[in-house]
Amino acid sequence: MQLLSIGVVGLGYWGPNLARNIAASGRTALVALCDIDPTRLDALAGQYPNATAYHDPQDLLEDEQVEAVVVATPVATHHDLAKRALLAGKHILVEKPFTARTDQARDLLETAERMGRVILVDHVFLYSPAVRRLIQTVESGELGSVQFIDSVRINLGLVQHDVNVIWDLAPHDLSIMDALIGRAPESLMVVGSSHASNGIVDMAHVHLDYGQGIRASVHVNWLSPVKIRHFMVGGTRRSVLYNDLDRSEPVKIYDRGIEVGPDPNGKRNLLVAYRSGDVVSPRVQSEEPLRAMVEHFADVVEKNVPPISGGDQGLRLVRILEATDESLRLAGARVEVR
Amino acid sequence: MQLLSIGVVGLGYWGPNLARNIAASGRTALVALCDIDPTRLDALAGQYPNATAYHDPQDLLEDEQVEAVVVATPVATHHDLAKRALLAGKHILVEKPFTARTDQARDLLETAERMGRVILVDHVFLYSPAVRRLIQTVESGELGSVQFIDSVRINLGLVQHDVNVIWDLAPHDLSIMDALIGRAPESLMVVGSSHASNGIVDMAHVHLDYGQGIRASVHVNWLSPVKIRHFMVGGTRRSVLYNDLDRSEPVKIYDRGIEVGPDPNGKRNLLVAYRSGDVVSPRVQSEEPLRAMVEHFADVVEKNVPPISGGDQGLRLVRILEATDESLRLAGARVEVR
Amino acid sequence: MQLLSIGVVGLGYWGPNLARNIAASGRTALVALCDIDPTRLDALAGQYPNATAYHDPQDLLEDEQVEAVVVATPVATHHDLAKRALLAGKHILVEKPFTARTDQARDLLETAERMGRVILVDHVFLYSPAVRRLIQTVESGELGSVQFIDSVRINLGLVQHDVNVIWDLAPHDLSIMDALIGRAPESLMVVGSSHASNGIVDMAHVHLDYGQGIRASVHVNWLSPVKIRHFMVGGTRRSVLYNDLDRSEPVKIYDRGIEVGPDPNGKRNLLVAYRSGDVVSPRVQSEEPLRAMVEHFADVVEKNVPPISGGDQGLRLVRILEATDESLRLAGARVEVR
Amino acid sequence: MQLLSIGVVGLGYWGPNLARNIAASGRTALVALCDIDPTRLDALAGQYPNATAYHDPQDLLEDEQVEAVVVATPVATHHDLAKRALLAGKHILVEKPFTARTDQARDLLETAERMGRVILVDHVFLYSPAVRRLIQTVESGELGSVQFIDSVRINLGLVQHDVNVIWDLAPHDLSIMDALIGRAPESLMVVGSSHASNGIVDMAHVHLDYGQGIRASVHVNWLSPVKIRHFMVGGTRRSVLYNDLDRSEPVKIYDRGIEVGPDPNGKRNLLVAYRSGDVVSPRVQSEEPLRAMVEHFADVVEKNVPPISGGDQGLRLVRILEATDESLRLAGARVEVR
Repeated sequence: MQLLSIGVVGLGYWGPNLARNIAASGRTALVALCDIDPTRLDALAGQYPNATAYHDPQDLLEDEQVEAVVVATPVATHHDLAKRALLAGKHILVEKPFTARTDQARDLLETAERMGRVILVDHVFLYSPAVRRLIQTVESGELGSVQFIDSVRINLGLVQHDVNVIWDLAPHDLSIMDALIGRAPESLMVVGSSHASNGIVDMAHVHLDYGQGIRASVHVNWLSPVKIRHFMVGGTRRSVLYNDLDRSEPVKIYDRGIEVGPDPNGKRNLLVAYRSGDVVSPRVQSEEPLRAMVEHFADVVEKNVPPISGGDQGLRLVRILEATDESLRLAGARVEVR
Repeated sequence: MQLLSIGVVGLGYWGPNLARNIAASGRTALVALCDIDPTRLDALAGQYPNATAYHDPQDLLEDEQVEAVVVATPVATHHDLAKRALLAGKHILVEKPFTARTDQARDLLETAERMGRVILVDHVFLYSPAVRRLIQTVESGELGSVQFIDSVRINLGLVQHDVNVIWDLAPHDLSIMDALIGRAPESLMVVGSSHASNGIVDMAHVHLDYGQGIRASVHVNWLSPVKIRHFMVGGTRRSVLYNDLDRSEPVKIYDRGIEVGPDPNGKRNLLVAYRSGDVVSPRVQSEEPLRAMVEHFADVVEKNVPPISGGDQGLRLVRILEATDESLRLAGARVEVR
Repeated sequence: MQLLSIGVVGLGYWGPNLARNIAASGRTALVALCDIDPTRLDALAGQYPNATAYHDPQDLLEDEQVEAVVVATPVATHHDLAKRALLAGKHILVEKPFTARTDQARDLLETAERMGRVILVDHVFLYSPAVRRLIQTVESGELGSVQFIDSVRINLGLVQHDVNVIWDLAPHDLSIMDALIGRAPESLMVVGSSHASNGIVDMAHVHLDYGQGIRASVHVNWLSPVKIRHFMVGGTRRSVLYNDLDRSEPVKIYDRGIEVGPDPNGKRNLLVAYRSGDVVSPRVQSEEPLRAMVEHFADVVEKNVPPISGGDQGLRLVRILEATDESLRLAGARVEVR
Repeated sequence: MQLLSIGVVGLGYWGPNLARNIAASGRTALVALCDIDPTRLDALAGQYPNATAYHDPQDLLEDEQVEAVVVATPVATHHDLAKRALLAGKHILVEKPFTARTDQARDLLETAERMGRVILVDHVFLYSPAVRRLIQTVESGELGSVQFIDSVRINLGLVQHDVNVIWDLAPHDLSIMDALIGRAPESLMVVGSSHASNGIVDMAHVHLDYGQGIRASVHVNWLSPVKIRHFMVGGTRRSVLYNDLDRSEPVKIYDRGIEVGPDPNGKRNLLVAYRSGDVVSPRVQSEEPLRAMVEHFADVVEKNVPPISGGDQGLRLVRILEATDESLRLAGARVEVR
């Protein structure tokens, strides 16, 4: 099989992980590397002598050997780089968040459409075996109807300068919700605050209304002394808890629920009782999500497989993130997600 | 020492626990019992042959042997019963929530003042050794300034008819916050929803602004398949996690925090880094909170000790609970707590 | 239904728990109490005014109202008291360990047989819902054949004067093993040591060979800083872990195992691989084991139900305990269990 | 600083990890690779184009550029390869277990002495920050005197053909014990059994007597459905639990203990009571142990630093492992460790 030849732009924190998986996969080849910081570039170029090192992204984009480009630079530069890559005829895999603004995301989708090129957004959690198992459980219908989603993603984190905690952490949760529900929320509210002196929001609760009775909440926090990763999906029949930190049992399906029936004491009330049954923790393979994503990228480009985290999903998430900014500006007021 | 003679009105779920502790304590005597349901009354009267059984609360209130009355009936009846008890010259210990409305709470405070009688509200968590240790840790100043409080109190619970999940569960968290911060919040917002068919709110996030930069959140939920009790206090120097379900280490003090300093790379930005040190789990005695509360009640009545959970705290909590109702009516709008 | 009238002899640590359950059950009546320590006797007699208080056990044994006697005194007195009770025509429920010596246990069995009376031994764990579920899982055959049992029962405990840690803690594990395997082990070895200055063995590993390839180990320890209760049953197809401290998921069934097959690389070796499947945590009712045991006692006496923890099981456990003493004397040598 | 030039022989499971760390460290250079399996060799040679690939170990040993050799082949070949390497003037880092027999280990020590070369044994746990913290805690004396060590290292593991579960897993625990106690045990007993059809012992309890009242036990097991890593050190004043699977709090120091004093009730007995204080979980850096070991190897070679896991420790562990074989042959009899 032909390998997909990929160049990586941006070798800060995440880019090297992508480069490693591209080089190691049997589906892709790492053919080019680029970073404006020469130290970073040299360090990685030493590890991958077969990849051409570029100081200027434009040179990488003009390299005809490069079929696809990974954009792993700060979010402010995503649109410009990704657009130039598409116009140069490259497929793109863009770090999350996809873009800094909705109009940029829309422009990239149109450009990709026009150029006949593929967009994948690095919503890497969607490629983790545990999340795939979670999605499969929901899609199988065994939970009944989804009633609520509650996610807690908190830890002591490096407070950042360019993005707040929502843009930094919530895309993980929002991408899983998007995969589970298949549409954007109708509206949202954000309660956030800033404690470090740089004024960046460092803890927030985002409350989303997906319509049809489905509510979701995400708590993201850089100041928590403990690390917690709880993603709970409550259904009418069963519920699931996905705990990313529980390596032995990351997904648990609870045969528990609320039952509503007529009150035997007569009266006008309904009797609401709870039911508590077994807990099943399905076997989840251990597999590196990044590797799976890189190989899926090759499949999307070469076999026309529908993307798991395509540009449309990236756009929906940027719309949500923009709306969180607006709700924060409005002191927590409810904001439509257009 | 003289025993405080107590009568218990309301023998549903909680009353028998109070009765048991009153009977077993060396500071109090259980002298009277009352419930309108004869089955319940007979069952308990059989266990405590020395206590007089009354079908009508009024009879108990007129019993001159009774010095103090426990009001453990549904909240709708608290004001009427408690007021009659005070007017009959009894001290009162009232189940939480104190009253159904703020004006009722205020009326009881005035009545007690006028009658020279004591009010204690059953905010039982304030008498648990772990919570006392938590409060002591915050008061010692070792956390620095409190920045945020985040509490999660979720489990599969019996959905109720007369109160929503906030009135049912949040008083526990709100009483601890009241003890920690010492004042009512300035405003709050509630995001809640109802999933069982009876229309009662069964999951909610309550966001409180206590002023001076202190924010608090409470997540209460009757539909969670898992039981979680996390109460986190984030400070500028240290943070604490109180986990009521961790029997061996319920309180953990984390020497972790965020540090802000000038960015060595120059630029206009501040460098914000995190610091991670030891975790200390202080020894916490195991002691029944209800027993400690009952004995504190005797101390307040007989020795004029200031109440840990007096009527003023009860009033502050009812004001908050009323404000949550208003925020729910206003679809989550911010509401002042007057 | 007629209540079984029971007298309790020995009101130290455990007797009052038995008294409480006997009084509260709808199947039994607490009619008599006895302790040589007047303070203890008076304390409990105050709580149960309907039970006659005796200072001398002989008086209780002569009380014609008493149909059955609970022997909850130190083990050194079990045989004498229990024998007198049987000879007085009473059924007996004896605290574990059943007796201090095998010949005493055998004598009680013969006496009970001759007198037509019932013996139950207080192997209370066999009445816990989690252990019942564990036994049922093994009996269903879903584990395949049992290969090994490994139990860890360690905590910081009050070092005792009259019994070592094996006689104190191991009967719990040995009774569960007896219920699972249905026979005494063939031989055992003990590695134990004593660290507190009174010379009593305070930590020990007991290794039992039940024949037919079934090995079991019990680690008991009074000096462990952490409390651990792990009881693991490994089978050819599945394995179970019973963790008495995990209140939400005390029993977990692991669909994991080792598979043996021919080595595809040729050679003379077998390929041994492991298989890892789902984990199921079955719903376990929460129910007080002591209550269930007391009611089972009534069933055994009145309905001729076969005892779950009869005198024969008590005898088998005393034989094992005696053999552990011998192995300790022989510095850990293997000892037959006769 | 001059880099230490290292060649790695044996590229199965562990060798590539060592190669990666040697290549990435700033103290060492990966200059040669060798495996008899050409597929493995080619795979790794592709990743490290600067290292010379050898099919025959002898060729690598004759490479003058190679200053030190890592021996990561099956244990049966350790002695032959390591001896030839020493005779060729190379320093050696040998995978655990050091050798298959005591005489081989002794021969290597003598050869190294004669050739003036360094031996390091890959007891990698001694380089983990958590174990270093554990050792430091014991050495500081804050535990008082060590009374016992109890280690549980169990999981579902690939049953092997050439070594039993003791030789495979116990060296980790034995190396930590060696570092803590500083001498070999006087005697040991092993209770082991084999359940897979290849007759290799797959579960075992090893009980060691280190003299001076210090007892240690190791439970190793390839058949456990759950993975447990508990290493407990009980002291007269405090105790420590090192849990390798607890990523947030791997080391916990318990201020708990047993206190012995005169019995206030008179009598001849001592009163033994327990004391329960705080738990402290010290901050442990996250750092790759293999990297630290490789750099320590360079320090030992170049700066004459005393080895943390030198050949003498390797020899002590092989003596213990040989003694476990003998105890197994003798059905669990106590065996001297000579």
